[in-house]
Amino acid sequence: GSGSDAGVDGCRTVYLFDRRGKESELGDRALQVSERAGYAGLRASVCQTIGISSEEKFVITTTSRKEITCDNFDETVKDGATLYLLQSVDQSLVTATKERIDFLPHYDTLVKSGMYEYYASEGQNPLPFAFAELIDNSLSATSRNVGVRRIQIKLLFDDTQGKPAVAVVDNGRGMTSKQLNNWAVYRLSKFTRQGDFESDHSGYVRPVPVPRSLNSDISYFGVGGKQAVFFVGQSARMISKPADSQDVHELVLAKEDFEKKEKNKEAIYSGYIRNRKPADSVHITNDDERFLHNLIAEEKEKDSFTTVVITGVQPEHIQYLKNYFHLWTRQLTHIYHYYIHGPKGNEKNTAKEVGPSNNIDIEISLFEKGKTPKIVNLREIQDDMQTLYINTASDSFEFKAHFEGDGVVEGVIRYHPFLYDRETYPDDPGFPSKLRDEEDDDDCFILERAARGKRPIFECFWNGRLIPYTSVEDFDWCAPPKKRGLAPIECFNRISGALFTNDKFQVSTNKLTFMDLELKLKDKNTLFTRILNGQEQRMKIDREFALWLKDCHEKYDKQIKFTIFKGIITRPDL
Amino acid sequence: GSGSDAGVDGCRTVYLFDRRGKESELGDRALQVSERAGYAGLRASVCQTIGISSEEKFVITTTSRKEITCDNFDETVKDGATLYLLQSVDQSLVTATKERIDFLPHYDTLVKSGMYEYYASEGQNPLPFAFAELIDNSLSATSRNVGVRRIQIKLLFDDTQGKPAVAVVDNGRGMTSKQLNNWAVYRLSKFTRQGDFESDHSGYVRPVPVPRSLNSDISYFGVGGKQAVFFVGQSARMISKPADSQDVHELVLAKEDFEKKEKNKEAIYSGYIRNRKPADSVHITNDDERFLHNLIAEEKEKDSFTTVVITGVQPEHIQYLKNYFHLWTRQLTHIYHYYIHGPKGNEKNTAKEVGPSNNIDIEISLFEKGKTPKIVNLREIQDDMQTLYINTASDSFEFKAHFEGDGVVEGVIRYHPFLYDRETYPDDPGFPSKLRDEEDDDDCFILERAARGKRPIFECFWNGRLIPYTSVEDFDWCAPPKKRGLAPIECFNRISGALFTNDKFQVSTNKLTFMDLELKLKDKNTLFTRILNGQEQRMKIDREFALWLKDCHEKYDKQIKFTIFKGIITRPDL
Ligand SMILES: Nc1ncnc2c1ncn2[C@@H]1O[C@H](COP(=O)(O)OP(=O)(O)OP(=O)(O)O)[C@@H](O)[C@H]1O
Ligand SMILES: Nc1ncnc2c1ncn2[C@@H]1O[C@H](COP(=O)(O)OP(=O)(O)OP(=O)(O)O)[C@@H](O)[C@H]1O
Ligand SMILES: [Mg+2]
Ligand SMILES: [Mg+2]
Repeated sequence: GSGSDAGVDGCRTVYLFDRRGKESELGDRALQVSERAGYAGLRASVCQTIGISSEEKFVITTTSRKEITCDNFDETVKDGATLYLLQSVDQSLVTATKERIDFLPHYDTLVKSGMYEYYASEGQNPLPFAFAELIDNSLSATSRNVGVRRIQIKLLFDDTQGKPAVAVVDNGRGMTSKQLNNWAVYRLSKFTRQGDFESDHSGYVRPVPVPRSLNSDISYFGVGGKQAVFFVGQSARMISKPADSQDVHELVLAKEDFEKKEKNKEAIYSGYIRNRKPADSVHITNDDERFLHNLIAEEKEKDSFTTVVITGVQPEHIQYLKNYFHLWTRQLTHIYHYYIHGPKGNEKNTAKEVGPSNNIDIEISLFEKGKTPKIVNLREIQDDMQTLYINTASDSFEFKAHFEGDGVVEGVIRYHPFLYDRETYPDDPGFPSKLRDEEDDDDCFILERAARGKRPIFECFWNGRLIPYTSVEDFDWCAPPKKRGLAPIECFNRISGALFTNDKFQVSTNKLTFMDLELKLKDKNTLFTRILNGQEQRMKIDREFALWLKDCHEKYDKQIKFTIFKGIITRPDL
Repeated sequence: GSGSDAGVDGCRTVYLFDRRGKESELGDRALQVSERAGYAGLRASVCQTIGISSEEKFVITTTSRKEITCDNFDETVKDGATLYLLQSVDQSLVTATKERIDFLPHYDTLVKSGMYEYYASEGQNPLPFAFAELIDNSLSATSRNVGVRRIQIKLLFDDTQGKPAVAVVDNGRGMTSKQLNNWAVYRLSKFTRQGDFESDHSGYVRPVPVPRSLNSDISYFGVGGKQAVFFVGQSARMISKPADSQDVHELVLAKEDFEKKEKNKEAIYSGYIRNRKPADSVHITNDDERFLHNLIAEEKEKDSFTTVVITGVQPEHIQYLKNYFHLWTRQLTHIYHYYIHGPKGNEKNTAKEVGPSNNIDIEISLFEKGKTPKIVNLREIQDDMQTLYINTASDSFEFKAHFEGDGVVEGVIRYHPFLYDRETYPDDPGFPSKLRDEEDDDDCFILERAARGKRPIFECFWNGRLIPYTSVEDFDWCAPPKKRGLAPIECFNRISGALFTNDKFQVSTNKLTFMDLELKLKDKNTLFTRILNGQEQRMKIDREFALWLKDCHEKYDKQIKFTIFKGIITRPDL
């Protein structure tokens, strides 16, 4: 419930329907009922308002037909309640009544928004996907930065500095207090935000098409930030400053505060934004959060920024973040691979200068008591899955498709050849394919499990970022053919691929799955064409692909057959 | 935003912080600003309240430091706004300010709640999963019925009766007006509902353990009904009557109304419940909904009921529901198989009398103009996947596991033997395994694809209902062994299975996926034991399973090898 029980002066307003008989009036009457006067007061007030003598036989009931008495007056006659004046409790309603109700969403809408949204798949911990929502926001916020786009995830686990906290800091455009207010409005997205003279979001403009749809336009539903912070912890402090502002704006949303407000019957969705000068941390008086003084002191050097500080971090998250640092930093690198490295990805042979297409620093740092901080820039990571795919591939096949006008899918297939005595298709270091080490199976099983094994071919990116739980098995034109094809069947197991869609393909609000990618891609009207040197090819894609695969096999696969033992040869080139 | 722009009498309250200098007072001052008096009035009021001469140099700004002038007064000085009194626009804030904000969830929280929640998987249309949420609610509501539990889904597509609508009707316990009010509160679940003297939910009691966890306790998050109705259409009319009530309660939530309220700056989450006598439809005056007169007339015969009427049904849903009637009714049968048929499922050989464990009638009816209605009771359907599994199996293996105290998993594995010239493992008629008809492959591929093929072994049920997008590939003890086992390798492809968990295993709010089933089941502390004739077996389950499988192979598999043609034999037993 949302309404408060009593008005300011202990006076409650109730709405009375007189439904005693046929001549009952239709509308309701508002009555002021004094708390002190109780049931007797209500009765008197009813008699006076309706104009009946108190000798007359009548009952006053709730809309559930509970008769109001001295004993239950307090719990039944609440402010805003609708009441009936009837001849008897079980009398039929001659004419209908209209009962005023409020149905404010429960605060769990915010506090539990993430709880059931990030779910595990194949033994993965979903925590990195919550972090990804905060990185998404920072990517959106830094999209118009002129210089480097800096996103820092700080794991503040040094307990000499206070209780454990996670901070995500970016040097993006920041938020005005109005925008910060809007941040807290669940489901308010850039599409529904009202044209507001203070907001730079009014009149949302779709970004222009760019390669791999790396448009940084990944704030979408108006839920991600809230889901993420309350998945990670119990309280979020948002601190933000836009470039042209004197002031820093600060807002705290905390589970505890909501519980308190509910208990005290205060307005659930009201609060305060603190506006203050940069680097002013006098309000941080709680010792548990003393790390905030340092974080706030850093504001001095910054023109614009946003800092998200999550406290009340779940203990199991802390354990995971510490113990699996290596794993989840690679997962994040995988998700944002093309944002970090640019549309071509982390190619071995290209120069590594930072330019406009790879100026995104995503820096993770872990602070623990008495240890030197562990810091990694995701761009340095060289063994995330996409890097492995790119760097074990000997050739690639690019293609494109359009769907219903402005739906765009780009794609790439990579060939991982067989070299001498082994497949070069990379294994996922986080989740080694469990079948790989079963060595003594039938030949037959080994063949199926070779190279890619049971994994689907395509990983799928939406506006440039990985949607981790959706993959596409194959397309007709790149699946093993029924009849013998140009290349041996095992070559079809040596390809990996990635698809890149724009936001005309829909994803679920947790950004874990596409809604209907496969349905749309396998639509008869979706035509794929090969792209070679930037040009769409004329030939049908199945033919193009078959020829490319045959070519790859002939050029790159180096298979050797061991016959009779002749002696040991050392091969330093392997 | 939620606040209204002006008070009743055109008078706005604003909160002013004097932050001109060091001696500034800390708190804010509430000022009443008359709309008519405009900027001049505000200025005068500020001077008077703070006690400064109007000659003094000062500016009044918004919290975004926009100076208030005659021109922008109307759009900047809104009711409830926080304002600054400063020496100059870009002066620093000596002491911080506290700006009052509201952050009411946007109404898309309700209206779009389902839009991105039900997503497609493997070419499936998710619409049946939205229906399932309404069936879940009806199952919960009828759980204490004494007689038959009746759930009707009516597709009202006869346009002589009005615009297309979907109605879900049950003979469950119904809702009081307070409970109907609570229905509309997003995220208010049985766990968070406040002890309320009118509610039968106060003090939620966990159901006692029952076989297959068929406890009908599948109302969980406080979101399902809202997500479902707004996924299917644009408006929901809830009509309900509890058994001991004289009155029917009726509530309409419609996208259109929310938009209207936003436009008129009315309270978004306020509305009316109509309380009326049963079968009274005088309020239905809109011709588009004239089918409601019949629906409401049926109330006469009913003691208690709930009817959900969805209008504004998406045209593509109408097409799908008509064209794929056969498919989606089977999907629903599959989801609720064990509720419909009882814990043993739809066994061929057991008597089909309706008893307390299979007294749930889920009836689907499709009404179209000029056609006889198509009506099916899901219990009659004999080719849903679970029925196919059960009826092609020649033997079954039951097991059980406990997780962390009160987490319960029951399971069954079924053996589908090879008979003469073919596997009996059933194919999914809705989604025939695409590899099946590729006949001229290598022998090797045929082996892998035989019987179950790439499909995982286990389908997973939560509190007795299918969670459609989660499956479990296998367990260590029922996966093909590394070394040759007791039974030939292809026998492992002849098993199907189902897992039944209680709600100690979590599902996502859309009930499409388990959150962490696999993680928990594969936990080292989760021990499985075989159940034979209701008794837990002592032997280790891997041994039990291996012996059972060998037994199945020897008893049921009938493989024949064709050698030399000798003549034609007719086998009437196949
Ligand atoms: N780091 C940030 N810098 C600037 N603005 C931000 C930042 N994070 C969030 N915002 C603002 O707050 C809004 C709400 O963020 P939130 O992540 O909750 O939803 P969203 O990004 O709009 O949609 P999605 O559900 O896709 O995440 C954003 O649209 C953006 O305007
Ligand atoms: N058919 C019905 N009969 C009686 N009560 C109902 C019915 N449908 C819904 N309700 C009531 O309305 C509440 C809200 O329903 P809703 O489906 O939105 O959420 P829920 O069932 O509580 O949780 P979930 O998110 O798991 O569906 C239910 O908890 C139940 O009390
Ligand atoms: Mg976001
Ligand atoms: Mg429900």
